[in-house]
Amino acid sequence: MTIELIKKSRTWTGTVSYYRHQSEMTSTPMQFSIFIPDGGSSRKKTLLWLSGLTCTEENFITKSGALGKACELDMIIVCPDTSPRGTALKGEHDSYDFGSGAGFYVDATQSPWNANYLMHSYLRDEFVPMIGHHFPINTDAMGISGHSMGGLGALMFGISYPETFKSLSAFAPIVSPIHCPWGHKAFTNYLGENNSNWEQYDPCYLLKERGYNGEILIDQGDSDEFLQEQLKPELLEKIGKEKNIELKIRYQQGYDHSYFFISSFIGEHLEFHHTKLI
Amino acid sequence: MTIELIKKSRTWTGTVSYYRHQSEMTSTPMQFSIFIPDGGSSRKKTLLWLSGLTCTEENFITKSGALGKACELDMIIVCPDTSPRGTALKGEHDSYDFGSGAGFYVDATQSPWNANYLMHSYLRDEFVPMIGHHFPINTDAMGISGHSMGGLGALMFGISYPETFKSLSAFAPIVSPIHCPWGHKAFTNYLGENNSNWEQYDPCYLLKERGYNGEILIDQGDSDEFLQEQLKPELLEKIGKEKNIELKIRYQQGYDHSYFFISSFIGEHLEFHHTKLI
Repeated sequence: MTIELIKKSRTWTGTVSYYRHQSEMTSTPMQFSIFIPDGGSSRKKTLLWLSGLTCTEENFITKSGALGKACELDMIIVCPDTSPRGTALKGEHDSYDFGSGAGFYVDATQSPWNANYLMHSYLRDEFVPMIGHHFPINTDAMGISGHSMGGLGALMFGISYPETFKSLSAFAPIVSPIHCPWGHKAFTNYLGENNSNWEQYDPCYLLKERGYNGEILIDQGDSDEFLQEQLKPELLEKIGKEKNIELKIRYQQGYDHSYFFISSFIGEHLEFHHTKLI
Repeated sequence: MTIELIKKSRTWTGTVSYYRHQSEMTSTPMQFSIFIPDGGSSRKKTLLWLSGLTCTEENFITKSGALGKACELDMIIVCPDTSPRGTALKGEHDSYDFGSGAGFYVDATQSPWNANYLMHSYLRDEFVPMIGHHFPINTDAMGISGHSMGGLGALMFGISYPETFKSLSAFAPIVSPIHCPWGHKAFTNYLGENNSNWEQYDPCYLLKERGYNGEILIDQGDSDEFLQEQLKPELLEKIGKEKNIELKIRYQQGYDHSYFFISSFIGEHLEFHHTKLI
């Protein structure tokens, strides 16, 4: 559980740091960024942010404009990378929606991906305990959010592990990888052809099977270029209604899939998590 | 004066757009980004932002976290690129501190740079009139700010053309290219060996010769890795005192040269410009 500081910068009234550690799960070095507001010796409310396709640990922390609000609320924000790095598997770096930068937060079962692409277990069993060990984070009561593929991850983790994640939100999430081209491509390669092995990672399936005791906040731009083909929030909305889940999907008029959208509403999401986390 | 929209995104209560136009001055296509808050038909208060080494029109608009505050103040922010692009002059792309991404806001006199690297005239005679033509900007009363090499640009333009720029601030500016390695390298290549041709682009020289009627706000991180060798704000501070200029240099404890520093204080700079612009 050794971590190595790569760089740090003072910002607002806190510090952004980038770290590297050798992951036992992925057998690769993994990086993450973390923002910690100044002061206090007790554990702070914390948001785990999962990024989308092509992203690293850097995108959210540099582009979200969230850190001023995080200071105001005295919240930590921690951002893992989206896939293992530094391997050169055949086809790993060929497309933006599969392989490096596109781990989809699943545990691959298919060769050669099953040697390194174990992002689900990495986050749950290695990353979360590690940040609890090194930083003033109560890892039994974190908030989780993310964007697009990371919104998929947030819903997947939030619905599956409510004992760890006490608040849940997402921006423009992929709500059902079983029902979209991004999901089909990645899940076929990582998990094989058998769709029944995909269900444990499909938010729509998970919500239907497990339900959710609490409020889920989702922001979705109605001018998002991926809305109809890939994201399909109406599939989740339908299950939410059937199961009487407190699911609030806000269609934001004119916003697209970019960080210009995320930065516009991240402050409200931080306030949402701050209110839900005790 | 034709401009071509490349892309646009809704953000906060406004729109970020990227444009391209063919510059007569640089003989290249040039890009810029602009944020315009919703509403109103009258001209809005506007900040011209000049970026630093390696940057394009994108860095500030995606990383500054300034757009929420710009909405609150109903201000336009416009960000030109830092050099011509698309040429392949010998040595142009070899280093981060000269050539592409490093135009230094001067008019080159030395071959081969003097064919395209005319960023000073480009901004003054082509860019500013163009944005006044296409957008609700009062180009006789803009604010100007920038970072590092762009802080040099902001001071240079703000002091030289007070009839155009009515408010002036900077983050971690190069205050005297005559007295630092970055300046020596770029100015020797762009302007030749004769230092007397450099003075018109040196904020310390300009402030000493012309003075400044108004307040200048500068934020400078005291943990900035370029502070002692390249930036040297004390040179400007000395002239400010001698000439009785209203120059406020705030040394911000623990902050470095990054956008994490800029984003922490850009809101105060926008408020400064908003107050000064009538």
